[in-house]
Amino acid sequence: MKRNVIVTDVPRPDMALVEQLGQYGSATVHEAMGRDGLMQPYLRPIYPEAKVAGTAVTVRCHPGDNLMIHAAIEVCRPGDVLVVVPEAESTDGMFGELLATSARAHGVLGLVIDAGVRDVTALTEMRFPVWSKAISARGTVKATPGAVNVPVVCGGVLVRAGDAIIADADGIVCVPREDVPAVLEKAAARTAKEDANRARLAAGELGVDIYGLRDKLKALGVTYVRHDEWEG
Amino acid sequence: MKRNVIVTDVPRPDMALVEQLGQYGSATVHEAMGRDGLMQPYLRPIYPEAKVAGTAVTVRCHPGDNLMIHAAIEVCRPGDVLVVVPEAESTDGMFGELLATSARAHGVLGLVIDAGVRDVTALTEMRFPVWSKAISARGTVKATPGAVNVPVVCGGVLVRAGDAIIADADGIVCVPREDVPAVLEKAAARTAKEDANRARLAAGELGVDIYGLRDKLKALGVTYVRHDEWEG
Amino acid sequence: MKRNVIVTDVPRPDMALVEQLGQYGSATVHEAMGRDGLMQPYLRPIYPEAKVAGTAVTVRCHPGDNLMIHAAIEVCRPGDVLVVVPEAESTDGMFGELLATSARAHGVLGLVIDAGVRDVTALTEMRFPVWSKAISARGTVKATPGAVNVPVVCGGVLVRAGDAIIADADGIVCVPREDVPAVLEKAAARTAKEDANRARLAAGELGVDIYGLRDKLKALGVTYVRHDEWEG
Amino acid sequence: MKRNVIVTDVPRPDMALVEQLGQYGSATVHEAMGRDGLMQPYLRPIYPEAKVAGTAVTVRCHPGDNLMIHAAIEVCRPGDVLVVVPEAESTDGMFGELLATSARAHGVLGLVIDAGVRDVTALTEMRFPVWSKAISARGTVKATPGAVNVPVVCGGVLVRAGDAIIADADGIVCVPREDVPAVLEKAAARTAKEDANRARLAAGELGVDIYGLRDKLKALGVTYVRHDEWEG
Amino acid sequence: MKRNVIVTDVPRPDMALVEQLGQYGSATVHEAMGRDGLMQPYLRPIYPEAKVAGTAVTVRCHPGDNLMIHAAIEVCRPGDVLVVVPEAESTDGMFGELLATSARAHGVLGLVIDAGVRDVTALTEMRFPVWSKAISARGTVKATPGAVNVPVVCGGVLVRAGDAIIADADGIVCVPREDVPAVLEKAAARTAKEDANRARLAAGELGVDIYGLRDKLKALGVTYVRHDEWEG
Amino acid sequence: MKRNVIVTDVPRPDMALVEQLGQYGSATVHEAMGRDGLMQPYLRPIYPEAKVAGTAVTVRCHPGDNLMIHAAIEVCRPGDVLVVVPEAESTDGMFGELLATSARAHGVLGLVIDAGVRDVTALTEMRFPVWSKAISARGTVKATPGAVNVPVVCGGVLVRAGDAIIADADGIVCVPREDVPAVLEKAAARTAKEDANRARLAAGELGVDIYGLRDKLKALGVTYVRHDEWEG
Repeated sequence: MKRNVIVTDVPRPDMALVEQLGQYGSATVHEAMGRDGLMQPYLRPIYPEAKVAGTAVTVRCHPGDNLMIHAAIEVCRPGDVLVVVPEAESTDGMFGELLATSARAHGVLGLVIDAGVRDVTALTEMRFPVWSKAISARGTVKATPGAVNVPVVCGGVLVRAGDAIIADADGIVCVPREDVPAVLEKAAARTAKEDANRARLAAGELGVDIYGLRDKLKALGVTYVRHDEWEG
Repeated sequence: MKRNVIVTDVPRPDMALVEQLGQYGSATVHEAMGRDGLMQPYLRPIYPEAKVAGTAVTVRCHPGDNLMIHAAIEVCRPGDVLVVVPEAESTDGMFGELLATSARAHGVLGLVIDAGVRDVTALTEMRFPVWSKAISARGTVKATPGAVNVPVVCGGVLVRAGDAIIADADGIVCVPREDVPAVLEKAAARTAKEDANRARLAAGELGVDIYGLRDKLKALGVTYVRHDEWEG
Repeated sequence: MKRNVIVTDVPRPDMALVEQLGQYGSATVHEAMGRDGLMQPYLRPIYPEAKVAGTAVTVRCHPGDNLMIHAAIEVCRPGDVLVVVPEAESTDGMFGELLATSARAHGVLGLVIDAGVRDVTALTEMRFPVWSKAISARGTVKATPGAVNVPVVCGGVLVRAGDAIIADADGIVCVPREDVPAVLEKAAARTAKEDANRARLAAGELGVDIYGLRDKLKALGVTYVRHDEWEG
Repeated sequence: MKRNVIVTDVPRPDMALVEQLGQYGSATVHEAMGRDGLMQPYLRPIYPEAKVAGTAVTVRCHPGDNLMIHAAIEVCRPGDVLVVVPEAESTDGMFGELLATSARAHGVLGLVIDAGVRDVTALTEMRFPVWSKAISARGTVKATPGAVNVPVVCGGVLVRAGDAIIADADGIVCVPREDVPAVLEKAAARTAKEDANRARLAAGELGVDIYGLRDKLKALGVTYVRHDEWEG
Repeated sequence: MKRNVIVTDVPRPDMALVEQLGQYGSATVHEAMGRDGLMQPYLRPIYPEAKVAGTAVTVRCHPGDNLMIHAAIEVCRPGDVLVVVPEAESTDGMFGELLATSARAHGVLGLVIDAGVRDVTALTEMRFPVWSKAISARGTVKATPGAVNVPVVCGGVLVRAGDAIIADADGIVCVPREDVPAVLEKAAARTAKEDANRARLAAGELGVDIYGLRDKLKALGVTYVRHDEWEG
Repeated sequence: MKRNVIVTDVPRPDMALVEQLGQYGSATVHEAMGRDGLMQPYLRPIYPEAKVAGTAVTVRCHPGDNLMIHAAIEVCRPGDVLVVVPEAESTDGMFGELLATSARAHGVLGLVIDAGVRDVTALTEMRFPVWSKAISARGTVKATPGAVNVPVVCGGVLVRAGDAIIADADGIVCVPREDVPAVLEKAAARTAKEDANRARLAAGELGVDIYGLRDKLKALGVTYVRHDEWEG
């Protein structure tokens, strides 16, 4: 049953590890999780260089009401990222420059919101990174209860308080807090392999050779034909 | 009944007041109107810094036909903003660099179009601000009648000729021409209040304290629980 | 019947002509084709200055599988543009920095993909232009067959291997390879005419006069009325 | 400025005329208005035979809040159709079987809602016609003020209290109350012409002959070519 | 971390209670949960009378691949409802008449799928209820691993194996298995109250009186004004 | 280059074979083509039992203009299906009861239109099957040239005049005219196999056994675990 509760003293993973995850970026982290944890691509950053790695403070709000975001700031700690979800679809601008000022004063690193955001020019100048579904000047009230730090579904992904949020221009990945060390290890391995391949590819070697795909293509029945011999 | 008419000599509000409104930005003006007048967020600026405050010259066009935009330029005055709406949904690029050149020569400050726009690289270089539903190279004909300066619905909002248009990165607000002085007053009051709060929030004071939300949360039944005591 | 084939030795149009087409830009080329060949506007560039003119190497992939993109690189030549289409709708990030590195090593100029792309920060730094339906970190497998250089439908437009692809901030136009010389001629004529009109419009002359639209407006029954005489 | 007001004693057009308009159907009425007044096609009936002709009682609601619909029932008269619009996009089920029971008890004929509806099985059994943007079980609160019988934009069309609403499987048309007699006349003329053409078309006569389109096709440069002589 | 696992011997709630929940319907159950648990309204039934109440067997699939649905049938029990989710957005027809035949032979009552379905004419004749995002003939392969009976996000809602699924024309609600008895109690109370109100509303009593909304409207500042005295 | 031409004397495949294809339905035919030829699922029938198998007469129109549909009727033969595509996205109701009356008088079996349709109540009563993107009363003009029987892209699929169109509740498949006999053969083989499997599945045999999927699941690393031993 839904409960209107603010959960405090949420365990967070080791921030140093979360920051390391952030250096790998969302694509590598998503791959390291076995292609899991990625939010849907309709959530976009408000400026191209937006980038964040932190721990989730989740917020469940009534649509068009940002009361619970204000309540959430109090339980944020340095290194947190707000993850805000309305109970029904909304594009209202539930978060703006004043809330960002407040959040930053408490060490919050950024925002992921499955709704709208406003004051994007000011937020961009502040370099306060936000990923949202919409940009909208539409304001909200502070009238209806909700919850903080309960599990929420954001961009199609379950996020629990304290999970790691890795976001950049490619998207947003949620890493369950207990999986952070294991994912970090896999991300490192994957990156090492990619670094080796990058040099070979840049030198003109073909992916079909490096990854051994010629046999696979053959086995799958893919054939080669000259254009002038092809019926098309 | 629909009439294909070009209305001339439209009354405009005092341009100095419109410019002042523009300095407050779309979010504040929308709030000052009692959260009204905001167009839907699918209308987006073609470059991030786009910003305009002016008086509407409205244009109703056949989809895929920009004849009436040409006709509208003649009745534009310095300080106007074109507000163009096709009679049926369209993403065609009904406006481009040549029309912007012509519009600017007559003092037009920018464009809001519930359709597509093209030549966006040139428009960006010209710093001619445009808010549109799409960017599309698709061209149009000049063959079908329409109307200028009749009331139109743009982005879900009724716009009459001479209404004030305040647009920036957060969206587009239409202020009925007779409401401009009253909205300006409310916008000033709101901004003064926000300025006071900004300093307190930046200093770490909480919104729940500044806005007196603790009692409201309690009255709404929101409770606090430690994570290790929570069943959730 | 669908065939999983890689077609080689595709004829290309004269690259010098394709580059000239590129200088006119997508809007002019689309007009020069009689308003044809333009892909739908949901395909957007990953950075505003993205611009390309080249010859299509087409790739048909299983959704979520980029095996055939790897296979396609081998048959690319300098001046080519990859045009990638999944068999069913997908926003997965089928192409990223490693593939771009490989493609560039073989002279590929850019990518049009009716799906997602990832590593957009790196691709932007490389200035490797991409037009896509989505930006998404979601990775893909290399497991299912497809085809290279067969006709595909991308963004609603039929593209055959070797057709010219002209893309910029306004969109993407596909010019059938045999039509390149004729389209080039028409684009030149159109541009000359526009250049002449630009100066007149900038000087304040009206489009209704330059294009002779006053008679048309009259013939279409469009009338003028003063605002204070209008019942509206 | 937005005002939270309930407007009473709204003038309605002659109900007998509105019913006659209804017999022509939305397509004919829309044509008779000069192709005007049609709401966007995302508003769909909840059952295929839904059909209504009545006079608008307009309702502006906060998203997720149906307080004002309850307030509106009191000012409804027999022959009215509720036209409900939320202030921001919403798909919540703001109206259901209980409200329909109440509305019908006061002579309300149906509902057009730019949001969601629920209890559609019961509403279908009651034959209470509804056009909506979504079907959704999501419930609403009764907490926020709004307005009744003020002008609203529904499905992209301005609706004033007392305007005629003609809706069926093809869509919803709003006829300004003062235009009802004139539109009725044009609808009758159009229908007479269509009836005459229907018989000729059924007998195999061609539209290009009946409507005299052969010359137009020729003038527009459309030519005929045998398939075996066509390069295409 | 994502695991490709088939979880067996999942606990189910008492089927008799689930069936009782089903008799209340999705709207009432959603309200009884405190307006929670409702999937997004893009999931629609394939025929208007579709209705189901059962226990979830969850399936996570690769897009365009239905291997895991086949694997899931083996762990289904009478009274189950399949809840199928692809790892990335897809509209492919992953389920059709043959799978329905198989599922029904094992007592499965219906399907909720966050993707496409096909053979809808046959499924409708079988009265096998399905809620889906799309109807599509597009077929799938059986090539990629996934999971059965792990938590999934379907239509924006977290579903765990064994949770109750209540679906009808208004939508789909997921009730956590441990909450079934409490939700049932609240649904009964709500229905009793609604039954009492229905009779009063049908007799013409107003909701503003029954629900005591007149004072609220007044407190919120809503005023009444005659149309001929209104400036609006 | 785009040409405004009406192509006559188009070769059609053997109608008896096309009708046989129709009996297999869109899903089977799409599979028989190697999962090819299926239009996107946004094209939906106007009534659930709509079903057609015929030969394409293609029509390219200006958006909001149905002149070329009238021109197309003259070159239709019994057994044809109209496939209508606007040059830019449109939801206008370009086709209604009068055109259907005319088309039927010339033996046309149905319509696929990548735009809107109107008079759907009348079309349903006539049992004239239509697949469309939208239902809309919005009318069109007869003013702009286009083409008949040239290749078009409809719902993402290339359709040439004379290709077979197989459409039903699951979607629309286009079979190139020269492939009809081969596709028919494969459809028959597939159906025979499915018939055999249907009986076994109805008897409770599992797909994982019938299709030999147990080894595949094992090879892919899918494991079984009891719920009470699973960490979740």
